[in-house]
Amino acid sequence: MSGAMKYAKDKVGLWMIGAGGRVGSAVALGVTALAKRLAQPTGLVSALPVFDEVPLIDPGTIVIGGHEVRSETILDAIDDAHEKANLFDEKIIRRCAPRLRAMQRNLRPGSLYGAGPTIRKLADLRGLKKERSGAAAIERLSTDIEAFRRRHALDCVVVIHVASSEPPFRRNAAHARFDKLHRALSKPGSNVLPTSSLYALAAIEAGCPFINFTPSLGVNVPAIQERAQTLSVPFMGRDGKTGETLVKSVLAPMFAMRNLSVLSWVGQNILGNRDGAVLRDPKTRQSKIQTKDKIVSRIVGRPTTTLVSIDYVPSLDDWKVAWDFIHFEGFLGTKMSMQFTWCGSDSILAAPLIIDLVRFAVLESKRGGSGPMPHLGFFFKDPIDVKEHDLFTQWRRLVEHVVKSPIQRPSSAGSIAPGRHRLQQSS
Amino acid sequence: MSGAMKYAKDKVGLWMIGAGGRVGSAVALGVTALAKRLAQPTGLVSALPVFDEVPLIDPGTIVIGGHEVRSETILDAIDDAHEKANLFDEKIIRRCAPRLRAMQRNLRPGSLYGAGPTIRKLADLRGLKKERSGAAAIERLSTDIEAFRRRHALDCVVVIHVASSEPPFRRNAAHARFDKLHRALSKPGSNVLPTSSLYALAAIEAGCPFINFTPSLGVNVPAIQERAQTLSVPFMGRDGKTGETLVKSVLAPMFAMRNLSVLSWVGQNILGNRDGAVLRDPKTRQSKIQTKDKIVSRIVGRPTTTLVSIDYVPSLDDWKVAWDFIHFEGFLGTKMSMQFTWCGSDSILAAPLIIDLVRFAVLESKRGGSGPMPHLGFFFKDPIDVKEHDLFTQWRRLVEHVVKSPIQRPSSAGSIAPGRHRLQQSS
Amino acid sequence: MSGAMKYAKDKVGLWMIGAGGRVGSAVALGVTALAKRLAQPTGLVSALPVFDEVPLIDPGTIVIGGHEVRSETILDAIDDAHEKANLFDEKIIRRCAPRLRAMQRNLRPGSLYGAGPTIRKLADLRGLKKERSGAAAIERLSTDIEAFRRRHALDCVVVIHVASSEPPFRRNAAHARFDKLHRALSKPGSNVLPTSSLYALAAIEAGCPFINFTPSLGVNVPAIQERAQTLSVPFMGRDGKTGETLVKSVLAPMFAMRNLSVLSWVGQNILGNRDGAVLRDPKTRQSKIQTKDKIVSRIVGRPTTTLVSIDYVPSLDDWKVAWDFIHFEGFLGTKMSMQFTWCGSDSILAAPLIIDLVRFAVLESKRGGSGPMPHLGFFFKDPIDVKEHDLFTQWRRLVEHVVKSPIQRPSSAGSIAPGRHRLQQSS
Amino acid sequence: MSGAMKYAKDKVGLWMIGAGGRVGSAVALGVTALAKRLAQPTGLVSALPVFDEVPLIDPGTIVIGGHEVRSETILDAIDDAHEKANLFDEKIIRRCAPRLRAMQRNLRPGSLYGAGPTIRKLADLRGLKKERSGAAAIERLSTDIEAFRRRHALDCVVVIHVASSEPPFRRNAAHARFDKLHRALSKPGSNVLPTSSLYALAAIEAGCPFINFTPSLGVNVPAIQERAQTLSVPFMGRDGKTGETLVKSVLAPMFAMRNLSVLSWVGQNILGNRDGAVLRDPKTRQSKIQTKDKIVSRIVGRPTTTLVSIDYVPSLDDWKVAWDFIHFEGFLGTKMSMQFTWCGSDSILAAPLIIDLVRFAVLESKRGGSGPMPHLGFFFKDPIDVKEHDLFTQWRRLVEHVVKSPIQRPSSAGSIAPGRHRLQQSS
Repeated sequence: MSGAMKYAKDKVGLWMIGAGGRVGSAVALGVTALAKRLAQPTGLVSALPVFDEVPLIDPGTIVIGGHEVRSETILDAIDDAHEKANLFDEKIIRRCAPRLRAMQRNLRPGSLYGAGPTIRKLADLRGLKKERSGAAAIERLSTDIEAFRRRHALDCVVVIHVASSEPPFRRNAAHARFDKLHRALSKPGSNVLPTSSLYALAAIEAGCPFINFTPSLGVNVPAIQERAQTLSVPFMGRDGKTGETLVKSVLAPMFAMRNLSVLSWVGQNILGNRDGAVLRDPKTRQSKIQTKDKIVSRIVGRPTTTLVSIDYVPSLDDWKVAWDFIHFEGFLGTKMSMQFTWCGSDSILAAPLIIDLVRFAVLESKRGGSGPMPHLGFFFKDPIDVKEHDLFTQWRRLVEHVVKSPIQRPSSAGSIAPGRHRLQQSS
Repeated sequence: MSGAMKYAKDKVGLWMIGAGGRVGSAVALGVTALAKRLAQPTGLVSALPVFDEVPLIDPGTIVIGGHEVRSETILDAIDDAHEKANLFDEKIIRRCAPRLRAMQRNLRPGSLYGAGPTIRKLADLRGLKKERSGAAAIERLSTDIEAFRRRHALDCVVVIHVASSEPPFRRNAAHARFDKLHRALSKPGSNVLPTSSLYALAAIEAGCPFINFTPSLGVNVPAIQERAQTLSVPFMGRDGKTGETLVKSVLAPMFAMRNLSVLSWVGQNILGNRDGAVLRDPKTRQSKIQTKDKIVSRIVGRPTTTLVSIDYVPSLDDWKVAWDFIHFEGFLGTKMSMQFTWCGSDSILAAPLIIDLVRFAVLESKRGGSGPMPHLGFFFKDPIDVKEHDLFTQWRRLVEHVVKSPIQRPSSAGSIAPGRHRLQQSS
Repeated sequence: MSGAMKYAKDKVGLWMIGAGGRVGSAVALGVTALAKRLAQPTGLVSALPVFDEVPLIDPGTIVIGGHEVRSETILDAIDDAHEKANLFDEKIIRRCAPRLRAMQRNLRPGSLYGAGPTIRKLADLRGLKKERSGAAAIERLSTDIEAFRRRHALDCVVVIHVASSEPPFRRNAAHARFDKLHRALSKPGSNVLPTSSLYALAAIEAGCPFINFTPSLGVNVPAIQERAQTLSVPFMGRDGKTGETLVKSVLAPMFAMRNLSVLSWVGQNILGNRDGAVLRDPKTRQSKIQTKDKIVSRIVGRPTTTLVSIDYVPSLDDWKVAWDFIHFEGFLGTKMSMQFTWCGSDSILAAPLIIDLVRFAVLESKRGGSGPMPHLGFFFKDPIDVKEHDLFTQWRRLVEHVVKSPIQRPSSAGSIAPGRHRLQQSS
Repeated sequence: MSGAMKYAKDKVGLWMIGAGGRVGSAVALGVTALAKRLAQPTGLVSALPVFDEVPLIDPGTIVIGGHEVRSETILDAIDDAHEKANLFDEKIIRRCAPRLRAMQRNLRPGSLYGAGPTIRKLADLRGLKKERSGAAAIERLSTDIEAFRRRHALDCVVVIHVASSEPPFRRNAAHARFDKLHRALSKPGSNVLPTSSLYALAAIEAGCPFINFTPSLGVNVPAIQERAQTLSVPFMGRDGKTGETLVKSVLAPMFAMRNLSVLSWVGQNILGNRDGAVLRDPKTRQSKIQTKDKIVSRIVGRPTTTLVSIDYVPSLDDWKVAWDFIHFEGFLGTKMSMQFTWCGSDSILAAPLIIDLVRFAVLESKRGGSGPMPHLGFFFKDPIDVKEHDLFTQWRRLVEHVVKSPIQRPSSAGSIAPGRHRLQQSS
């Protein structure tokens, strides 16, 4: 950003559900490294020059806290990723360690209310409380978030869910209206929402924008969205689009625009971190596959054989390797093919997007936005209230919403222009 | 297209430079198969529903002619591709053969004036004349095109260059202004333009839209463009974007939009048809590599190591296999990678685009357009007067130009919608 | 083969279980094309020069018959493969068609006794009989084979199972000894063996060498092997090694010989022919995956994460695409990777191996061999009585058994030498 | 190795030409890490159980020295690889650093006599002397090696060339006989051998086994080999087979053994270390490509289109990515394909093989061997006096030579058996 450009001055907190996990700890390290000028904003969409004149907050000033159910600390998680997945520079780790240790004090025990056996098995944090009802869990979680805001005198706290995936949760009658849901949640032992949705409600009750970066249910419940609208809270989700699906969201439109007929699209994903381990549970895997699998047929707009598989390969640790094979038909019935292999670190790809979402959510909040934020569809596999899945349409929507409408800069907005990495240059 | 939709009634000719080559013969077979309802319009961009209400001509009615310097007939080329590359259904070939034989009579001997040794070696057609000067060649070629138009009583003839690539041709002083160029061309034995540019001028003098689908110089000469403007002739080029570069034009923007830093992009192309054989000449290869190589750094907008190589592998015949390796950096200095392999038939991918270009050029011509047609940038690796190389921006420009502006249909235009392949359903 | 070399003069029959399927029909076309000198022996191991002086039969003289439960004829299957998978040259098909139609008369209705629902659904041949007991089925099938031998005055008939895969069949007490098994088979309605094993016994009772090219149970039953030994019948199986597993059998030893530690080996297979369709049944798939998955850990000799998946992708038809990702560790704990994509036609790869197996089984039979033929382990994923799974050890064993031992040619045997494709040159 | 097993007690030195380069420094770190029990012998062929009873030296006891022309120290090179290529664990580096610093004192300035401009540009070591003649250079280099042996009281010093590749060097008349060569070398300013061959002669004159791990000329000169025979010195080379070519040496035989006809084999290699930078010089690249390209046609034994390209991609640093595409024909003229991508660290793959070569060369030397060591063909792309290029034949030869012949253990030798990584377990 040029010298003329100024950051918004708001003091902002990021409360992560699963703050001590791989994504959470990478965000913590990333924010600290940005603050200490040890890292470039590579991978931050919000650092692209097109947003230079939008009053976004300084990513280095974000205060981090969160809920966690495991005993591993943020620094443990970083060391583990460094050792097993060869991520991060040890010099950066060393210089950020003191602040990361301090940050650890902002973490509070999460809730297992509504959690399945897979998550329960992972939850080794001592002092995890057993709540009596969903409502009790929500209240406790909400209080934690509010305490964090007060303690750090934050103008705004954005709550982002980055914990392990839950199995699919079947919608039920209580999900339709908030009054019904509220009653159901108050019954002791009631099992009307999965944990991710309790966190969503806790954030909303605390008046905090809530974003679900996972395929879990979260805010995808009409009654919860109704409540967010009532309390004027913005929200968005779900399932961050970081790797294979990101590629699909540009390749599938290419075939469509060229009128090439996609016959089959097969995707094989392998990964070895806790996310992968959790996906060994076939039910949980199903929930992930669903959000991954929809996108191609939605874009291509015709019946197509699509297959997505995800397998756990421990040796890969945080590295996700995805192989996609696309069989397509061209003119005169000719069958052709394309294949790609994506090899990326899931946490490294996700972390800057979490920071982007904080910055854009704060902006939206300050502009008085509430309810779903479809202009953030760009970041999600299965975005709420968004019908267009090609990345370019989503990109235009993001840029038009964030840049154009309020500050009248119609000219070059939307161009994916050179001159990146200027965040550090301001003095 | 729906029943309400009607084709434009114009009688249109397509004059191909290199009509008997692999691309030319695939176009000839394709047009015939469409006319006989033996093929779907798969691969035709202009058959997408977004263009349903645009008055484009019926592709099955296109009359085909062209210049050729080799003795192989259109049907020979088709049989050869069938045998060596396993292209085309023999039933379709058999049913189209009579019309293809008739079409052969529309071909005229091309010119070798200005051609290099590689092309001269291929030129085995008997009766090739030796012109005295560039101007003489242009006049003769132009007369051929006009005769074709008269003989078939055509409303419009679009001239498209699909012949083998020439080596790069250095711009010289005579290229700056048409009067100078005209004088230079008239001198006997002058060597002021490569053959592709003589063809371009021949088309323009005949008042025909000219499109260069190859990396040869063609209309990329200021003096020739000046002449086209004077005579109100539309033109466009160069180098059709059919495979590897097409993929680059969606993947490179993806990295840019996500602020992922492309460190290196290496592309290895192998193919075995005459196009590949011609590229064994290192000079010619250079001209191809140049148009292929520019696109990534143009989109990414920062210094990046890009390498493109093309090698001739006879056993592949018409199949182009391209492997691209993309090395990129994400957050916190993490290096990641992506690779893809494209396996497509060059002729099959090019042929429908040639038909698209005829349809769009005729439309432009009827609407009174002249000069460059930057809205057709979508089809080219190195499009004239087009700065944006990402496919989506090019797509919007195409749709907005062709659909929106004249017929006021602002709503869904631009969406890459379902419901394709409806061309055949009109009755 | 040199002029001096002579084929063995025996008149040999090949009886295929599933003769009208994709593999069976490709064998039928291949044998006919070899007889008519329309094809080279590419893909025939037995046509390599190392076997030049071994008295093998002329592949063009093999008389073909078999059992089938579907109504599709051999010629139908060939046309279908030609249309959907672009296999075979139509000129070859046309010239071989009369003989293939004649061959069809050698086919007899197979049995569904012991077959599961997946196979039953496919079995649309009219006149399929319902046998009373396993023993009755065996007798009827055996009589068919003997009638074929008599009718064509054959010196030897080799029976090869190439029908669709069965689900895994659990071993039971009756499998241990032949007398027990015989009693159990005689009981009306008994369900003691799957169909593939009934075919195996039918062949053995008819005194014919039996080879199981599929992952079905076949001759992998102690009691059946006991019977074969008693009747001096040679046998072998199971599951032909044609593509991905073939590659594994040379790559896995490479890692082992270099002391590189294979951490994970993931294989994703997609295919679209009936074999693939049958594998949609999860039980059947299991039986296939088992034989495919064992090989890596057997060769590597240490605990390794191995995953094999097979998915049905109809658009691929007979083409099998397999992607394998190998994660390995080298010196100083460095993790590295290799991946490959195999793209081959299953039937085309299998057919010449079937012909090889006939030639080698006849040789073995003439030499007085009986029982398992471990020297044919080279051809199988899960070879009977073979512990070494690397292809090179298997190759040496094949060559040493076939060439060296009986005819004392110690010198160059075993070398994979030039000068191939000489089968046709004999006059 | 089991407790019973004992290492040979010899005190052995390894003198590396280019000791401060990437491979040299990885060897230095590796030997130190093995000595300190910080590393497993993964990647060491000589640590496989088949060699358990062969009296090989303890790799941790190897004393390292060498010639170098650049100023970068061993530790600098290790830090550089750690930073740029993410190689090595920093804990291991830290614990080995003192010994590596001590090791640095064993390095002596190399020679630039006979070197080309590419190498000269890299040579920034102060105090490099300019020799008067080839003979003078040889004498000085030889004296350095002898001084190293005396200072450390070594029983044997093995000299291994791991410096940057030279351009191809044309054989000349002086290369035929040693007396002629000796005279030519003595002339001041004579240019009769490239530097790598001067190093070879220096080693031989010092009575040390010489091994050329690079594609440079080295010992591939009849007169030098004559001298080695005269002085009873064993030697071997050239060009270590570490990655893509290693894979070729198992895949090409697979196609040959299955009588599948390889139509084309295209290999694209990209890498970014100094080795890659040096290869930017087209002449040097040629020498590398030659040794890489021969292997396929040698194994396949028939005319095949083979292409190998190597490109410099700085961002990859020490990582070599190779893509190979294999086009092959099967039965009935069907074209199929296979492709693989290899992604490995060149230094990490090379280093353990250097240690293997020391161990095997010392063994050979003690057994009285001299002249070429064709049983080490397993390690080289272009092995001296070896005709068979498939890895399995080379493996058998290695095992038979090293294990079987002298110590009569005919049984399981040659099996690629489980139970690896036992080096550390001896106590």
